[in-house]
Amino acid sequence: MFKKVLIANRGEIAVQIIRSLHEMNIKAVAVYSTADRDSMFVKMADEAYCIGGPFPSESYLNMAAIIDTACLSGCDAIHPGYGFLSENAEFSHLCADCHIKFIGPDYRSIELMGNKANAKETMKKNHVPTIPGSDGVLKSLDDALNHAHRIGYPVMIKASAGGGGKGIRRANNDEELKNAYNTSYQEAKLDFDDGSLYMEKDLSHAKHVEMQFIADQFGHAVYFPERDCSLQRNHQKVLEESPCSAVSPEQRKHMGELISHAVKEIGYENTGTFEFLMKNNHFYFMEMNARLQVEHTITEEVANVELIKAQILVAEGEPLPFKQSDIQDNSYAVECRINAEDPAHNFMPSPGKIKNANFAFGTKGVRIDSGVKDGSVISPYYDSMIAKIIVHMPNKKSAVNKMKRVIKEFKIDGVKTNRQFLYDLLNDKQFNSGNFDNMYIETNFLKEWLKKVE
Amino acid sequence: MFKKVLIANRGEIAVQIIRSLHEMNIKAVAVYSTADRDSMFVKMADEAYCIGGPFPSESYLNMAAIIDTACLSGCDAIHPGYGFLSENAEFSHLCADCHIKFIGPDYRSIELMGNKANAKETMKKNHVPTIPGSDGVLKSLDDALNHAHRIGYPVMIKASAGGGGKGIRRANNDEELKNAYNTSYQEAKLDFDDGSLYMEKDLSHAKHVEMQFIADQFGHAVYFPERDCSLQRNHQKVLEESPCSAVSPEQRKHMGELISHAVKEIGYENTGTFEFLMKNNHFYFMEMNARLQVEHTITEEVANVELIKAQILVAEGEPLPFKQSDIQDNSYAVECRINAEDPAHNFMPSPGKIKNANFAFGTKGVRIDSGVKDGSVISPYYDSMIAKIIVHMPNKKSAVNKMKRVIKEFKIDGVKTNRQFLYDLLNDKQFNSGNFDNMYIETNFLKEWLKKVE
Repeated sequence: MFKKVLIANRGEIAVQIIRSLHEMNIKAVAVYSTADRDSMFVKMADEAYCIGGPFPSESYLNMAAIIDTACLSGCDAIHPGYGFLSENAEFSHLCADCHIKFIGPDYRSIELMGNKANAKETMKKNHVPTIPGSDGVLKSLDDALNHAHRIGYPVMIKASAGGGGKGIRRANNDEELKNAYNTSYQEAKLDFDDGSLYMEKDLSHAKHVEMQFIADQFGHAVYFPERDCSLQRNHQKVLEESPCSAVSPEQRKHMGELISHAVKEIGYENTGTFEFLMKNNHFYFMEMNARLQVEHTITEEVANVELIKAQILVAEGEPLPFKQSDIQDNSYAVECRINAEDPAHNFMPSPGKIKNANFAFGTKGVRIDSGVKDGSVISPYYDSMIAKIIVHMPNKKSAVNKMKRVIKEFKIDGVKTNRQFLYDLLNDKQFNSGNFDNMYIETNFLKEWLKKVE
Repeated sequence: MFKKVLIANRGEIAVQIIRSLHEMNIKAVAVYSTADRDSMFVKMADEAYCIGGPFPSESYLNMAAIIDTACLSGCDAIHPGYGFLSENAEFSHLCADCHIKFIGPDYRSIELMGNKANAKETMKKNHVPTIPGSDGVLKSLDDALNHAHRIGYPVMIKASAGGGGKGIRRANNDEELKNAYNTSYQEAKLDFDDGSLYMEKDLSHAKHVEMQFIADQFGHAVYFPERDCSLQRNHQKVLEESPCSAVSPEQRKHMGELISHAVKEIGYENTGTFEFLMKNNHFYFMEMNARLQVEHTITEEVANVELIKAQILVAEGEPLPFKQSDIQDNSYAVECRINAEDPAHNFMPSPGKIKNANFAFGTKGVRIDSGVKDGSVISPYYDSMIAKIIVHMPNKKSAVNKMKRVIKEFKIDGVKTNRQFLYDLLNDKQFNSGNFDNMYIETNFLKEWLKKVE
């Protein structure tokens, strides 16, 4: 069993990991940047060490400093949270070399899933439906043109090593494809030091449906009810719900079993999430996130499990604390991300010091996960999340009513927030009917909303 | 359907009622005393009216002022919360006369349950097991002596109109009974203007087990898993859990069905709670609280229902929103009441202004219901509750681990609190084993605890 664990992260997720550790009687060690010296997670940890300057490269991405701190403070393991080093195979490898358990998948699994083309190939082999495309790295522009003619336009060009929307281009014809190929190649080379590209059929205007799982070293894998994360803006999720109204219980079981089978086949340990596009009732594998995600909270609520604790147990070499038959899917949860940003001005981040916070916690079904409080600073160096508001109820109608009440009550001074934007989204007819796809906010809702607030 | 409801209460419960109303799209009207003008519930209401001075008799017990405000502001109904006028038959009657719906039982039911001797008689008729005793008002001291000889000492003398521990005396022999009879008579006469007394077998060192139900006007009644409220000090509940470890599923079903039958028989509408003593695996009816209780929260968690909303629906004349078969009992919830008080000095109230509050909300299974925030004042005029911390988990072990973490994290300046007392109780072996009765805190735990902190 672990006695002491280092959290290689900050903010909200660091707070939740520290809490899980404390509930398991494990000491928590925080590492922090100079910008975070007064942060809540630093004060909550049993030990805390400053490891560098405010830029992520100086601190939260500074592998040597983090591993050194883990060794010197006598940690058994490192939890990477999400973002930063959570999907960095080199870091996971380094941990293993230093005999520190990385609470997440093995570096080989991270590497495999980190290369999008290889990940897709692997899933295809394991009968997980994938997006029609080049099925591997494009050899040349001619190869790309041939594939496009076979699949049919529109197509997407993507960087194998990409993520977060970088190195992605859409093409509707040969001319656009030539441009897209060249620009994406240069961008990928520059950003990821890897010019590998692949092609996929354009499945825009689909639902973004994802399914999380967790696997232990004893060959057990459990999948959870899917999340609908279609409501995005600029590839950032705005509001997530679980389950997805478009997925039937039969589809859930079918996809879940495919996933469980696949992760056992590749020897994957710990948690991960399969991201799918869903269109015309078909699933298409996009990628697998080899880490905990921000929105794991709604899965915890619906499935009735605690995922950070399960991650820690699995990393300790324990079997999973639940079986597939324990997992529930007969309720509904929704998450709104309250950010310090200005939706009326292109969602510009609004850093500042939080004052007069009213988080509106309380009553059945409400959970507010946050890493800040009155006096905390939303720093310009990091993401601008203030809190995740999660509401869990028997059905969507009652959950949305409650979420609207919470968001209305939630108030914070010192920074601008997306509170009104979220409130209006919760009142939106298309959102309530479930009739929305991954382009809905950008192509419909946002335009109407901006007209209203102007 | 109600359009506007007045809340005849303050603090935490007023906040939760306002939230329920808002989630049901009903306007909330607050009434407040001069001492509460800056309170959270006053700011959260859609309208708020000052109705008198800080003493309860001037404001929260001021029936005329409350009913006037309800009429003048156009309210359809009044929710009385708990305490104050919640079990006042005259107030419920007055509401009916003014065509304002009282969200709670009819005044006849309140009257019936308010008289402890009549309540017991009624329950006995309906096969609910009661405490052996005089079965009615004691006619004289001689009558009392005869009953004591029949039942066997020790016995308790209680005021029929009593409550909150007033007018209660214990007797181990004839001599003590004579004193007890006379003193209780005088006290009851003075305090309640009603000298009626009754006698019961002394069942101290029993578990305090209570079972809540709700009934509608269509003859439906639903009972909920019982709560163990044995952990009390000076007749005040300190920590409550549900279900009770000493009650089997068969007993739960049996007692629940007796209760459902009884409340249908007496035509009771809305919610109430049967309080039992449990000793040697037998239940003995003590009294019925004809109102919502503070600890309804843990029932909401375990049973997976929302009780304030159900109360409002029933009062609107709607059928219950759930059936008996919807009610769950396969998890565990615990509530700790954080009070502004000093356990090391006889739990003396510690009024003051709250500063630097850290309520430790967040993570799955944690619910914090409170009516205060930074800058709020814990007033010397009212109870000293700061927050109810509720933890809901699959089992007691994981819930207690989580509760300990939350209580450790929970911090507040400006007033003394019972935080450490609760934390130590959560660590107590007897508490964790379930092996405790209603005298445990006063006769065991508190003594040991005081030695430790001195």
